[in-house]
Amino acid sequence: MKIALGQINTTVGDITGNADRMLEFANRARDAGADLIVFPELAVAGYPPLDLLLKDSFIQANLERLHRLKERLPIAAIVGFVDVNHGKGRHLFNACAFLEGGAIKAVQHKTLLPTYDVFDEDRYFQPATQHTPIQYKDISIGLSICEDIWTRGDILEKLSYQIDPLQLLSEKKPELLINVSASPFAVGKEHIRLELVKEQTRRHKLPMIYVNSVGGNDQLIFDGRSFVMNEKGELIAMAKAFEEDLIYVEVGQKETEAEKTSKVKETEAKIAPGRTIKESALKLKGTIAEFSSDRTVNTLSALVLGTRDYMRKCGFKRAVIGLSGGIDSAVTAAIAVKAVGKENVMGIAMPSPFSSQHSIDDAKDLAEKLGIEFHIVPIEPAMKAYDTMLSPLFEGRERDVTEENIQARIRGAILMAASNKFGHLVLATGNKSELAVGYCTLYGDMCGGLAVISDLPKMMVYDVARYINEEAGKPIIPVSTIDKPPSAELRPNQLDQDSLPPYVILDGILHAYVEQRRKPDEIIRLGYRPEVVQDVINRIDRNEYKRKQAAPGLKVSSRAFGMGWRMPIAQRFQEKATAPTSHAASGSA
Amino acid sequence: MKIALGQINTTVGDITGNADRMLEFANRARDAGADLIVFPELAVAGYPPLDLLLKDSFIQANLERLHRLKERLPIAAIVGFVDVNHGKGRHLFNACAFLEGGAIKAVQHKTLLPTYDVFDEDRYFQPATQHTPIQYKDISIGLSICEDIWTRGDILEKLSYQIDPLQLLSEKKPELLINVSASPFAVGKEHIRLELVKEQTRRHKLPMIYVNSVGGNDQLIFDGRSFVMNEKGELIAMAKAFEEDLIYVEVGQKETEAEKTSKVKETEAKIAPGRTIKESALKLKGTIAEFSSDRTVNTLSALVLGTRDYMRKCGFKRAVIGLSGGIDSAVTAAIAVKAVGKENVMGIAMPSPFSSQHSIDDAKDLAEKLGIEFHIVPIEPAMKAYDTMLSPLFEGRERDVTEENIQARIRGAILMAASNKFGHLVLATGNKSELAVGYCTLYGDMCGGLAVISDLPKMMVYDVARYINEEAGKPIIPVSTIDKPPSAELRPNQLDQDSLPPYVILDGILHAYVEQRRKPDEIIRLGYRPEVVQDVINRIDRNEYKRKQAAPGLKVSSRAFGMGWRMPIAQRFQEKATAPTSHAASGSA
Repeated sequence: MKIALGQINTTVGDITGNADRMLEFANRARDAGADLIVFPELAVAGYPPLDLLLKDSFIQANLERLHRLKERLPIAAIVGFVDVNHGKGRHLFNACAFLEGGAIKAVQHKTLLPTYDVFDEDRYFQPATQHTPIQYKDISIGLSICEDIWTRGDILEKLSYQIDPLQLLSEKKPELLINVSASPFAVGKEHIRLELVKEQTRRHKLPMIYVNSVGGNDQLIFDGRSFVMNEKGELIAMAKAFEEDLIYVEVGQKETEAEKTSKVKETEAKIAPGRTIKESALKLKGTIAEFSSDRTVNTLSALVLGTRDYMRKCGFKRAVIGLSGGIDSAVTAAIAVKAVGKENVMGIAMPSPFSSQHSIDDAKDLAEKLGIEFHIVPIEPAMKAYDTMLSPLFEGRERDVTEENIQARIRGAILMAASNKFGHLVLATGNKSELAVGYCTLYGDMCGGLAVISDLPKMMVYDVARYINEEAGKPIIPVSTIDKPPSAELRPNQLDQDSLPPYVILDGILHAYVEQRRKPDEIIRLGYRPEVVQDVINRIDRNEYKRKQAAPGLKVSSRAFGMGWRMPIAQRFQEKATAPTSHAASGSA
Repeated sequence: MKIALGQINTTVGDITGNADRMLEFANRARDAGADLIVFPELAVAGYPPLDLLLKDSFIQANLERLHRLKERLPIAAIVGFVDVNHGKGRHLFNACAFLEGGAIKAVQHKTLLPTYDVFDEDRYFQPATQHTPIQYKDISIGLSICEDIWTRGDILEKLSYQIDPLQLLSEKKPELLINVSASPFAVGKEHIRLELVKEQTRRHKLPMIYVNSVGGNDQLIFDGRSFVMNEKGELIAMAKAFEEDLIYVEVGQKETEAEKTSKVKETEAKIAPGRTIKESALKLKGTIAEFSSDRTVNTLSALVLGTRDYMRKCGFKRAVIGLSGGIDSAVTAAIAVKAVGKENVMGIAMPSPFSSQHSIDDAKDLAEKLGIEFHIVPIEPAMKAYDTMLSPLFEGRERDVTEENIQARIRGAILMAASNKFGHLVLATGNKSELAVGYCTLYGDMCGGLAVISDLPKMMVYDVARYINEEAGKPIIPVSTIDKPPSAELRPNQLDQDSLPPYVILDGILHAYVEQRRKPDEIIRLGYRPEVVQDVINRIDRNEYKRKQAAPGLKVSSRAFGMGWRMPIAQRFQEKATAPTSHAASGSA
């Protein structure tokens, strides 16, 4: 038997388009001789559908499309959809259907509903109450959905799930496990998934087919990498990362009943009493796609896919980016070119009297190297106009950060004007370090429809820049952009490092505080100075109001600002280091 | 026995401040002869703490403060806090403690964890597994927390709770129920609460003391109105709306055991077999605060409190508002004056060449009537500067909505400059109708730290304006502001009604679609034209990207945009009316 892994890129809410894509893949799979094709979690609806799930019309449209699919699919299929039970109230289920011969032969609901970080499934779904393997041809298959397999000891404990769906399934003696997922990318997550499934296949002595979604949906980027492991946890087949793919696994004949029975008895004898897990006797064969485990390579691929999909799924063909000559806008522009092509990217340099000539040169140089449309719009006329307009109101007041922010807001307004006039999407260029400590201007450099690198700490932006040049075999991003010290150039001779700790320190504290959730004392024990730690943490805490109005940013870390980060604004809790600190450094931007 | 209802205004994360407030109220209650004081849900932590709950240091600080409180409280108290159980993993509970005689005598966890609309409790908390009444003096009291009592037939079914905590409690025969809540305001919700508790008290034949939080925390406004009902569902006592209050209920002596026993038997005979609910014999006496059920009056009070608290809790003394001469900014300014006083509000009119003289006059008139600081900053210099700067880029292109948006963004930048220079908070003035259909400019009129009236449909803004004048006994908001047709004045002779359906129609469709979640066909059946319904719905759906970057807005309706509204941006689902529609009207802003 040949099983296809249909790693498709769905769009949230595009029920017709998603179903058409499944039909197309199923037809290709049939032509390749496959018997069964497996699609990702909620393939009909797209993931995550969020509050679309509150619309009855959405649920109905998804059900109708499933029924149409069952009649039109050329081979058997496992299809993720939203199931509904109108028994007592309106209960929704994150479900997958086993479609065969024009009928829905079985439906498996999801049991474990992740409700942490970017996930809110308890808000919408009810958990499965039944776990029954399906029978296809002569094989018994246990179906599960995404989180259902995330029950390794440590994870189970942390999330306090009371139930283990794979255990319940394996007690019913399937010969093969299939998991359909929509598992978002984060740096390093591919290894965690492989380790997880290795552990589960070994524990249950069953092979597993794992089909993941691919593509960007708002902040989330699904990285694909669907795979198959045998019961020993050996990788049999793997699909490509960050693109659609259709791969196959040959599933060999079972042994005879007599052999199986004897083996079951033998196995049972070896394991703890009360457990009835048996060893699978399926033979599996497949091919393994190239697999990069470099975090920079993966991050870049994720951002390219996330940018391309956000633009495509929102209906934008072209992007416009403010080019400062600095590293952030350079990397954002390079990603945009990879995502939608150089002919679809416009760069605008907006120098002020505080901009250095080398910044303008670097911006121009970048645009030339990328081959994109480039314009220079000096902002001094607007700066002077604001000075004129505001001088009566500001009479007797010193110049301060106000005037710096005005420059940033003029640039934001120019980019938005280009967006309005030409219909391009503004890509915001801020990085995670800035966003964390509020070293950015609301309605200024924070303007944009999508914040491409807002989950990349500054040092990571440099890594990506270097890799872009390395991959191209030539400096796409000007060397001087990479080498010069970062500056917002909002006043003469300004450097980021005047207002912020060195990025290597800032990023280290940021990682420990935001991603690892460490306490100030723990961070200090990592070797950072107490007053710097306290200062950085305070800045992160008090800039929540800026992040609440930030453009949606592509998530590539284990903890990004945005949909998975839910901090109150008007709040007074401050984490304090108990170690003595000297007076905290002050500063603002 | 005298029980105090301590209706306090807590701040999220201000553990020390919240505890101090409780001590202060408890001391006042002791002076008034009270034996026991009851505080709202999560009074130590503030509600909703959101991701602060992920910080161990926050949980610890809250526990330490509870222990300090137990030693310092002059009388017995029921205190809401976050409990933690480190048994298997880290399990948190939304809990309340019964503190008496320097000890924690009992802890009751919350059972029903709301995870819908603005609530995400499943994300953070585990449900209660035990329901045991506490014993205070000679009375047995059943404690519950907020959602635990929201189990009326229809609500229970809709939310599919599998358990009824009040039923479990009442089976253990308490004589009194106490519920501690943080129940956010929405228009009409006060009646729903009273009806709910009336039903519960009658069903269980027990009196209930209901203590609600008061005050604004980001988008949520808690309206107080704590109350006491006897076992017949009669209102015995009620605290003030929208302000802190400390009220008392006298709880009379129980009858003798013999009397009680005979009554229990009598009651049991009348009710279904297997149920052991008994009639309470407590006598209750209290006072009832004035209670307005006018939606306009309540909405205004809510917005004043929400604005005051957001500013206070974020550390802002003064507000700055752009005054256009229109109704939205006028109402926002009037609310700001009520919230923080006229001496703390600055109004800035920012006329363009398209602004009518009557608009400038109306803005000035308003500022005079409110008695606030007022400035006029004409924006033509910046408009000209943008024209100059952008003319090479825009060469050969017609003027369009781009230039209109530039005006809005200049105004936004001026307000933000005033905010930066003076440290005032910018209050955004957009209403719900605009925000719904995207008739607003991102980074322009959408600028601000708080969107005061963004949950008020336009017609409701007029209601509030008229009420403000009625209440004052004179036109605070100029009559011409109320009477003239709404205009954004971004081009000559522009009227809102050129781009939008009349507000009475727009608001009706908006209410049906957003708040009542009706389908297009249902809305058409209410009497609206099919093409108008389809057009409004499409506009609402496609403007999600603007709302994602909107300032936090005060929630006063049953369904506000913001934290309780979680729609994907890049999505393709469109609800279509099945009724035939002519070509949908087009238009943009």
